[in-house]
Amino acid sequence: MIVADFAMVPLGSGTSAAKYIRSVYEVLREIGIEFLPGPMSTSIETRSFEELFDVIEKSNKKLVEMGVQRIVTSINIDYRLDKEISIESKLRASR
Amino acid sequence: MIVADFAMVPLGSGTSAAKYIRSVYEVLREIGIEFLPGPMSTSIETRSFEELFDVIEKSNKKLVEMGVQRIVTSINIDYRLDKEISIESKLRASR
Amino acid sequence: MIVADFAMVPLGSGTSAAKYIRSVYEVLREIGIEFLPGPMSTSIETRSFEELFDVIEKSNKKLVEMGVQRIVTSINIDYRLDKEISIESKLRASR
Amino acid sequence: MIVADFAMVPLGSGTSAAKYIRSVYEVLREIGIEFLPGPMSTSIETRSFEELFDVIEKSNKKLVEMGVQRIVTSINIDYRLDKEISIESKLRASR
Repeated sequence: MIVADFAMVPLGSGTSAAKYIRSVYEVLREIGIEFLPGPMSTSIETRSFEELFDVIEKSNKKLVEMGVQRIVTSINIDYRLDKEISIESKLRASR
Repeated sequence: MIVADFAMVPLGSGTSAAKYIRSVYEVLREIGIEFLPGPMSTSIETRSFEELFDVIEKSNKKLVEMGVQRIVTSINIDYRLDKEISIESKLRASR
Repeated sequence: MIVADFAMVPLGSGTSAAKYIRSVYEVLREIGIEFLPGPMSTSIETRSFEELFDVIEKSNKKLVEMGVQRIVTSINIDYRLDKEISIESKLRASR
Repeated sequence: MIVADFAMVPLGSGTSAAKYIRSVYEVLREIGIEFLPGPMSTSIETRSFEELFDVIEKSNKKLVEMGVQRIVTSINIDYRLDKEISIESKLRASR
């Protein structure tokens, strides 16, 4: 399991990004992936790099469909082989 | 109000970072700042850049006290002048 | 064209990451992608999200082959539809 | 010595960020800090956290002066105690 978080900043589309973030949540629900919305980024949990990349590409394509002409996406990936991890296990570990 | 998130990765200190994250939470509690633990990063809410930077420096110094010799810190800052923001308002906006 | 940069931090493998970075450059040369080494991250230029993701996955797998048990990868992607971009054009634009 | 890189994304100010990046370079020259422009971010070298934070705050304030209402800043900091580092030493190490 891979845990990652990502944030997308649309350029040239006003200062508010809330409607774009909501659309990304829709994409995540359609894909059926485990995710946790945060104030600065969205955390996701995927079985493979392919699944993770699918999320990033579909989320970018969604914003383009909504008319965004430039998107900066930041992703952080935690890829761990010595231990099974999940959003839940990572939240619990530091409690 | 500035909302930011940050993550610290210690190098040369094993694969587990949980005890370091818990120590950073202690630093945040001592400072008395509003924060939200996440699976990949910790979100904070500060009144100024100074307060934000104080958090980052004290968190780094804490890990050094614990014996860490190299730390990579990633920070994302949302600095917004057209609207008051907080961890709570940002979570709410995209619901 | 997509321009991105990425940095990989290995955990549990000492404080030096130089040999891992050099191995990632080898991966990039084998793939035949345009890239620019930087002090904090490596910039790449790809024709598609697929090509970009291939780079990230192969770079992670390379470090795993070298024995790394946990890797934190940070990626920033500039996806722009209103203009052709490249590493060179982006460096030039802000000169 | 601390080596870091940072990137600033202005929201609500069109899709082009080149003029803002050039202004940030001016800020860096005025401060008199060592820096290296990259396609995705700008690397800097500072003697302390204070100096690093001064760069980030002044760069944000500069964009605000230019009329930007919202800025997302991403920073990566390499803080290393076991070894002297610089932009140059980090570029050399992975060659």
